[in-house]
Amino acid sequence: MYIIFVVAFFLASCSHDADKPDKTIAAPDSTNVAKDPLPSWNDPLKGDIIAYVTKVSKDGSPDFIPLKDRIATIDNDGTLWAEMPLVQELFAWYRVKKLVAANPSLAKKQPFLAVVTKDKAYFEKGGDKALIQLVAATHTGMTEDQFEADAKDFFATASYPGRNVPIHKIVYQPQLELMNYLRANGFKTYIVTGGTIELVRTISDTFYGVPKNQVVGTTFKYAFVDSNRTIMREPAIDLLCDKAGKPVGIQSHIGQRPVFSMGNERSGGDIAMCKFCQSNHYPSFQLIVNHDDSTREYYYQEKDSASLKAAAQYKWHVISMKNDWKTIFPQ
Amino acid sequence: MYIIFVVAFFLASCSHDADKPDKTIAAPDSTNVAKDPLPSWNDPLKGDIIAYVTKVSKDGSPDFIPLKDRIATIDNDGTLWAEMPLVQELFAWYRVKKLVAANPSLAKKQPFLAVVTKDKAYFEKGGDKALIQLVAATHTGMTEDQFEADAKDFFATASYPGRNVPIHKIVYQPQLELMNYLRANGFKTYIVTGGTIELVRTISDTFYGVPKNQVVGTTFKYAFVDSNRTIMREPAIDLLCDKAGKPVGIQSHIGQRPVFSMGNERSGGDIAMCKFCQSNHYPSFQLIVNHDDSTREYYYQEKDSASLKAAAQYKWHVISMKNDWKTIFPQ
Repeated sequence: MYIIFVVAFFLASCSHDADKPDKTIAAPDSTNVAKDPLPSWNDPLKGDIIAYVTKVSKDGSPDFIPLKDRIATIDNDGTLWAEMPLVQELFAWYRVKKLVAANPSLAKKQPFLAVVTKDKAYFEKGGDKALIQLVAATHTGMTEDQFEADAKDFFATASYPGRNVPIHKIVYQPQLELMNYLRANGFKTYIVTGGTIELVRTISDTFYGVPKNQVVGTTFKYAFVDSNRTIMREPAIDLLCDKAGKPVGIQSHIGQRPVFSMGNERSGGDIAMCKFCQSNHYPSFQLIVNHDDSTREYYYQEKDSASLKAAAQYKWHVISMKNDWKTIFPQ
Repeated sequence: MYIIFVVAFFLASCSHDADKPDKTIAAPDSTNVAKDPLPSWNDPLKGDIIAYVTKVSKDGSPDFIPLKDRIATIDNDGTLWAEMPLVQELFAWYRVKKLVAANPSLAKKQPFLAVVTKDKAYFEKGGDKALIQLVAATHTGMTEDQFEADAKDFFATASYPGRNVPIHKIVYQPQLELMNYLRANGFKTYIVTGGTIELVRTISDTFYGVPKNQVVGTTFKYAFVDSNRTIMREPAIDLLCDKAGKPVGIQSHIGQRPVFSMGNERSGGDIAMCKFCQSNHYPSFQLIVNHDDSTREYYYQEKDSASLKAAAQYKWHVISMKNDWKTIFPQ
């Protein structure tokens, strides 16, 4: 995940500070579930989703799933919001700028120098070591309270490159409807993200209606500091919540297999989660978002097509953004 | 925690298999919250608890805490159920017997030989290495599914040494009432235990009304096995959820400070959690169970009295089992 985001660092036009920052963070649209639970979705996929949710949540149905087992695990980047570039990447950029502003001499030191001068070669040469150095410098070494204050400030002021909208405007409207629909039918919706857990927790409730404790993500090592009763963020990764790390995070945080999982094609990051979900003894449902809409969103395909191949092989559902969604972003 | 439980191994009379195992696991008593939410509690502590819960949950109160921030973190061993001996210890014993029964030659090998022959010296000499060897041999090296099936079987058949009752009969009745009362007032009740997370998850719902995803505990490393879509339990500890590990587990799983925390004196295991809780910017409440009832439960005190000293210093509330509880165990 970090490899992707740092490499993409230099490709993105990082216009963090919006001219007129939108400090209001939008709550998820409340769809009128009773009328049409999924107004932004097209058939036949829409009907498939409704058929599944209906058969597993209807008391007396042979496929009925008890409430405590209606667990949905949903990826974030490229599944719930746009990932071109990753919001995580924008946040790292914001942190570098802030650190350099507070201490201009940092701009002469690595890894800040490489970021400020857009020195691609530094990260190409330095490999994992250089990446970990950058992540450590921007995401750790502060208290959790400080980090959260920074993350909050970032979301209140950031705008999305190329679109010039606040970050809550790059969430996918159909997915907000889907999450509302799942919850209205007794599902617990979890975000299971390769992004760092506390960054996503900053907005999980206001953007998606998902409480902090239902976010699973990439986690740094924490240490409790007795003297000031705070958590320090240490420069080491505890869980890399991507690929095989997703079922691991799910087991640790949720303690059971999901029955509904959703990810996207790009890097194969959600294949393991969907496989884990499908091994549930209850009827399960898997979805993979295909980024095939160059007009309304972005067009990008996985090099080896592993996610779409897995979807075909294991009969997971594929969301064509172009064909299955009436709208992409909230109005 | 493991040091405690393995040393105690040889002191406990391990009578795992009850003559007449009680396969029915009791649901938590449903107290009539409207009438008297805490019938097994005595004043003045009872009144202190009610006063706190009332002031923070009453809309318009200056001390009001929003629903999403009403987080209660509660220790298990010695706080929610008896710990003389630890249930974890009984489970390890059960696992050793089962492994030796399946493969009798194991009884000639360490660490099984030491357990079977009650060779105290082996663990005293071997220190941490020998302990990790025993924990690895009994708790890991199997799939999560296998482990959970074993844990379920254990709870269905085990009886508690010295009392000859099924395990659900050693939970503390006043605490069931307190958890119900907290939940009735919008608190999310989490178990934060030094015990291993999946063992406690086996019974968290049926014993305490706490869903699996609201259990934080000592966790082994997991690995996802793609070929059979299962989680393997690896012989290494990922989180030791004791002392300073408790705030770390809380941050990772819940993502925010609790406002209510409860632990017990014995080893100082809950001091860090109570300190973390008390550093919440909302009004908070801390409780430490004092095992001072030799007649109805067990009498034991911490060597350095660190927990009770911390309670006095920081104005946490102490539960005298002898004086504050009308009943200890469910009838």
